[in-house]
Amino acid sequence: MRMRKKPNLIPRMEWCAAVQVTQPESLRGRWLEAFPGYRELRVELGCGKGRFTADSAFDEPDVLFAAVERVPDAMVVAMERVCERGIENVRFIDADAVRCTEIFAPGEVSRIYINFPDPWLKKRQFKRRLTAPSFLALYEQILKPGGEIWFKTDNRPLFDWSVESFCENGWTLSQVTNDLHKNGPAGVMTDYEAKFHAEGVPINRLVARKVILP
Amino acid sequence: MRMRKKPNLIPRMEWCAAVQVTQPESLRGRWLEAFPGYRELRVELGCGKGRFTADSAFDEPDVLFAAVERVPDAMVVAMERVCERGIENVRFIDADAVRCTEIFAPGEVSRIYINFPDPWLKKRQFKRRLTAPSFLALYEQILKPGGEIWFKTDNRPLFDWSVESFCENGWTLSQVTNDLHKNGPAGVMTDYEAKFHAEGVPINRLVARKVILP
Repeated sequence: MRMRKKPNLIPRMEWCAAVQVTQPESLRGRWLEAFPGYRELRVELGCGKGRFTADSAFDEPDVLFAAVERVPDAMVVAMERVCERGIENVRFIDADAVRCTEIFAPGEVSRIYINFPDPWLKKRQFKRRLTAPSFLALYEQILKPGGEIWFKTDNRPLFDWSVESFCENGWTLSQVTNDLHKNGPAGVMTDYEAKFHAEGVPINRLVARKVILP
Repeated sequence: MRMRKKPNLIPRMEWCAAVQVTQPESLRGRWLEAFPGYRELRVELGCGKGRFTADSAFDEPDVLFAAVERVPDAMVVAMERVCERGIENVRFIDADAVRCTEIFAPGEVSRIYINFPDPWLKKRQFKRRLTAPSFLALYEQILKPGGEIWFKTDNRPLFDWSVESFCENGWTLSQVTNDLHKNGPAGVMTDYEAKFHAEGVPINRLVARKVILP
């Protein structure tokens, strides 16, 4: 509906383009070099409309956030959000999570966020879950030693399955909960999460690390 | 029913007495000194009729097992079992788990087993659960650095509650599963567990460590 287009949409989109990295493979292994001044790189896989990434980046301006999203229609909203708020420490990548090892070098990432991913409820689809063993093997490559995965979902079957997936692949878990906000809102929320929380839906959360314990 | 008593019951009980420690506090801090030749001390809290302890001790003859049980009627069965099989590396303690810090010194225990404990299903009873925060604080004292708690239960609400109890108190988890035997029998089973497994009841399991990760 062109007639209703806001007069500043085009300049706004152009401004947004500055926070997108269209050739992310070209930065593999030198993200913190290409964007200097940040103490570490964190990645959100599936940033959706970007509330979580925007709020996290706002809270921690000394951390570089790479927000990966395979649905451009959602990612544009996230990009606008970040740009509107003047947040400078986020870069957007239009890609599927399976490409993460092409985009990030071994040990380059300090933390991976996986928030409310597609639960893929049919058994034959389980391999597509972002916590499936084949994905964990990719994350293990790009995470630095002691690096963490922060995982949240409202879907309990996905959560329980993921706990087993992590453990069967040698990850250790901490901060496991089936009701993250039981004592009041805890941490930065995604758009989905804020909605679920308002509806009283419990949120599952865990932190996973691939460490060899003594 | 005296008339049915086996003629060798009295000598059998006397023989069993050798595997019980009636003054366990007197061995606090010197269990491996009092029973030399073992590489480490492990404790089962609530050994019941002793199948798990007996089988574990049989499998690992170089480990000393302290089996704690507050119900003497159950413990006697466990003691007989161990004696009948000629297993030498188990000592029985008739005590409540809450006394564990009186019986074991800081860092004296390598591993604690908690198998199918009373689930204490009413909310006001939760504090009696062997995975309640007050108990975890005791276990932390007696475990050596890197020492583990191996926990199993068929009771899913207890298991989920315990996962949160461990995590809220800074323990890290590994080997978390809601169906331990899904790929066939795994590890030494308790009496209860063998029965549940035969009935197709899934068994929950985790390993917890109190470690400061890098």
